[in-house]
Amino acid sequence: MSKKKNKTLRPKAKKPRGFEDKSSDVLRAETRLIKAAFSVYDAHGFEPLQTPAFEYADALGKFLPDEDRPNTGVFAVRDDDEQWMALRYDHTAPLARFVAENYNDLPKPYRRYQAGSVWRNEKPGPGRFREFIQCDADSVGAPGAASDAEMIMMAADVMPVVGLKHGQYMVRANNRKLLDGILESSGVPNTVEGAAQRLQVLRSIDKLDRLGPDGVAALLGDGRKDDSGAFTDGAKLGASAIKAVLGFTTASDTDRSDTLRTLEALMGTSSQGQTGVEELKLIDDILNACDYGPDRVVFDTSIVRGLGYYTGPVFEAELLADIKDRKGRPVRIGSVGGGGRYDGLVSRFMGQAVPATGYSFGVSRFAAALSRMGLVENANQPPVMICVFDKSLLGEYFKLARELRAASIRAEVFVGNGNVGKQLKYANNRGVKLAILIGSDEMQRGEATIKDLELGAEMAKAIKTNEEWKSSRPAQKTTSRKDIVAAVKEMLA
Amino acid sequence: MSKKKNKTLRPKAKKPRGFEDKSSDVLRAETRLIKAAFSVYDAHGFEPLQTPAFEYADALGKFLPDEDRPNTGVFAVRDDDEQWMALRYDHTAPLARFVAENYNDLPKPYRRYQAGSVWRNEKPGPGRFREFIQCDADSVGAPGAASDAEMIMMAADVMPVVGLKHGQYMVRANNRKLLDGILESSGVPNTVEGAAQRLQVLRSIDKLDRLGPDGVAALLGDGRKDDSGAFTDGAKLGASAIKAVLGFTTASDTDRSDTLRTLEALMGTSSQGQTGVEELKLIDDILNACDYGPDRVVFDTSIVRGLGYYTGPVFEAELLADIKDRKGRPVRIGSVGGGGRYDGLVSRFMGQAVPATGYSFGVSRFAAALSRMGLVENANQPPVMICVFDKSLLGEYFKLARELRAASIRAEVFVGNGNVGKQLKYANNRGVKLAILIGSDEMQRGEATIKDLELGAEMAKAIKTNEEWKSSRPAQKTTSRKDIVAAVKEMLA
Repeated sequence: MSKKKNKTLRPKAKKPRGFEDKSSDVLRAETRLIKAAFSVYDAHGFEPLQTPAFEYADALGKFLPDEDRPNTGVFAVRDDDEQWMALRYDHTAPLARFVAENYNDLPKPYRRYQAGSVWRNEKPGPGRFREFIQCDADSVGAPGAASDAEMIMMAADVMPVVGLKHGQYMVRANNRKLLDGILESSGVPNTVEGAAQRLQVLRSIDKLDRLGPDGVAALLGDGRKDDSGAFTDGAKLGASAIKAVLGFTTASDTDRSDTLRTLEALMGTSSQGQTGVEELKLIDDILNACDYGPDRVVFDTSIVRGLGYYTGPVFEAELLADIKDRKGRPVRIGSVGGGGRYDGLVSRFMGQAVPATGYSFGVSRFAAALSRMGLVENANQPPVMICVFDKSLLGEYFKLARELRAASIRAEVFVGNGNVGKQLKYANNRGVKLAILIGSDEMQRGEATIKDLELGAEMAKAIKTNEEWKSSRPAQKTTSRKDIVAAVKEMLA
Repeated sequence: MSKKKNKTLRPKAKKPRGFEDKSSDVLRAETRLIKAAFSVYDAHGFEPLQTPAFEYADALGKFLPDEDRPNTGVFAVRDDDEQWMALRYDHTAPLARFVAENYNDLPKPYRRYQAGSVWRNEKPGPGRFREFIQCDADSVGAPGAASDAEMIMMAADVMPVVGLKHGQYMVRANNRKLLDGILESSGVPNTVEGAAQRLQVLRSIDKLDRLGPDGVAALLGDGRKDDSGAFTDGAKLGASAIKAVLGFTTASDTDRSDTLRTLEALMGTSSQGQTGVEELKLIDDILNACDYGPDRVVFDTSIVRGLGYYTGPVFEAELLADIKDRKGRPVRIGSVGGGGRYDGLVSRFMGQAVPATGYSFGVSRFAAALSRMGLVENANQPPVMICVFDKSLLGEYFKLARELRAASIRAEVFVGNGNVGKQLKYANNRGVKLAILIGSDEMQRGEATIKDLELGAEMAKAIKTNEEWKSSRPAQKTTSRKDIVAAVKEMLA
């Protein structure tokens, strides 16, 4: 960054690759979504927390879901004391650090929510940004599946607050212990050494939607060659283990009690598996007592979540579009959030067990889905603009704008450069509904002209000739100064 | 970040130096403040914008107010295409980049607000953080002082929305052109070459509060030796120029019209100076028309703002505490926000004039000041907690919590580990008002016990002996299951 004294050397106005400027419509939708989630979490007694953007790199750890892809990573800087700091890539790793650092001062359980940017130093691509907003709720020091049930219900509770109806969303829950049970029975050891293989199994199952059972079977076994000829190494499970895993992923149906019975039988003598079933039973009890039927929450054994650190119940929230497929079933938009139990993440720091569970959603993805479903209101452009006809009247214009605002009407005085024609063009482009014109003559007569720009635009389309236009004096009204606010209210109504 | 497979090597749970974890109380106060400002900016027809955390380093430029101090700078990373990116240090430089990049698509004027973290890679110290939140409103493409007047009024309008009364705040405005006029008359050239000297003059004046007129006079002249013996080089003005500058900084009084007359005389034949007076006159007209008296906005010639890029009107918002000094005047808490006109910042990119003005406040500083003035409500801890007496009744407990929330009462079921004694201790520590206890006997009888924890704690202080305690059965009430919500409402009222 050399100081450029030569005035002809201008910096380029360009945002960095993989980052976005968010405009009014997007921000209003995202803000609404975060507000809805916070109101639900608040009502449940969770409290807000905001950790800093930076963490020490070793405290952050490596838990990125995509660490098997190239160019994946974090944004790291070396501090002047030689320690590496990195921007957070999610809100869970910083929470674990925060809880461990403040363990003695925190209530147990500690239940908090947090929303904010996270950063991933990935190769940018269409729709793949290097900064995005996540919104999380977590319970730390909460050992029982009751707190997982609470997370699942909160995930469902956010939905109606953002305008979704029953049938437009579904929360799908599973339990990692069930898959552990299956793998245990199939001879895959539940040990630190087996961790990489188990993670590969999880990520293979996570591709069921995209690759189908045959593709996943290949990934669970020796590996898979895709259409481009590229080969992905497999998890090296044997044939019977592959069969057991695939059988497990399709064991659930929409009736939760049925599914629990099926799973109980499937888990056989695996103690991990039976514990998993017991936990889902408690979740089912709570859901039933609170009237969360299978129209909102189901058990779905194909849900595994790609993160290695989950240890118990896992869940995803999906939006189902209003459109139906050929069989009349609602179409999946896909997952907008997910979470689960991670009993080992805080104990990384502590050397003692600190059970935890959490739910996270991607704010942009969720807001974009709501928008696709037609559930996001248009941004409110200011309905009223006051034109600057005569600069000596600026004080009067600002006074009028103030009166309108006092009546809860958004209003602005034009503060740019340009004549009234240019001002009206600006107003039209911004979607302003009414323009108020007061010249010095009108000021003296105590009058104002209010132009209905929406109606004016419609009429202009219908009117063919200039003559007609002039004679029709379309869509405008003269009123006395003292009645402007009332007249504006009437015209906006 | 080496992968530590050795389980005994634990990362240290510590946040990086100069960063903070923000807890519930602080966040609620800051959120309230941002919401208040956004509501004012929205009512004026401004729209939200969010630029990314990163900008290309050359687009960001070097406009940090503290660039003359050591260790000052930005957090920069080199991208994989070798370009340097840096985290934004304010919201103004990114706005200039955004406007230049999207100039043809934006309305003119473009008026936006933005709040979010900014980062400064400075030496951390007490109260000096390397990440903090700023909240900005700016009008770009707004050439006249009317838009500066709008900024000043918005700065004042935020105050009552956060609970401040007239007399508890003051917006102080000045105009850089006035000082330019004084310097012009004193032979300091208003050229690119004179920029460094002018900046030094500004920063010297900025220290009036701390150093007094003699200290500033030294800084304006040859330089100043402070108490520690350290020498700061001065701006090298001559004696008459120093006298003129100091005379100017004390030229204002609380009457705006008086001040304008004084300034008009002081500026003499300087065209820069007279333009500055004209602009303040227009601002005064608008303020008068909108009824912003000198109890809220004054002209104060000691306000200069330390940033080099300001070109016209500048202003600061100050909080005056409720406490008075010995002469009965309200005590200054100091500046919580400021801004001004910067006509050159966008044109850095464009090679064409794009006039702009803006107002920014530091969210943490402002919120902390409100807190010191007793204007921040305590965080709302959940008023009701349902104890887990019997795990087989978890479904019932969650159902009851849901009923309470449906009646707009924040409620939680205890999801941690521990017996009822431990649960009540948790509730007490969190400030929970009522605890609800339902054991299996009570369940069968269709009853519940509600303990008033606040009252209970007070009574416990008054009660001396264990006997008395047991016989008094303090502050608790038994009610039937169906009447719990009504009973809770009554006890909270």
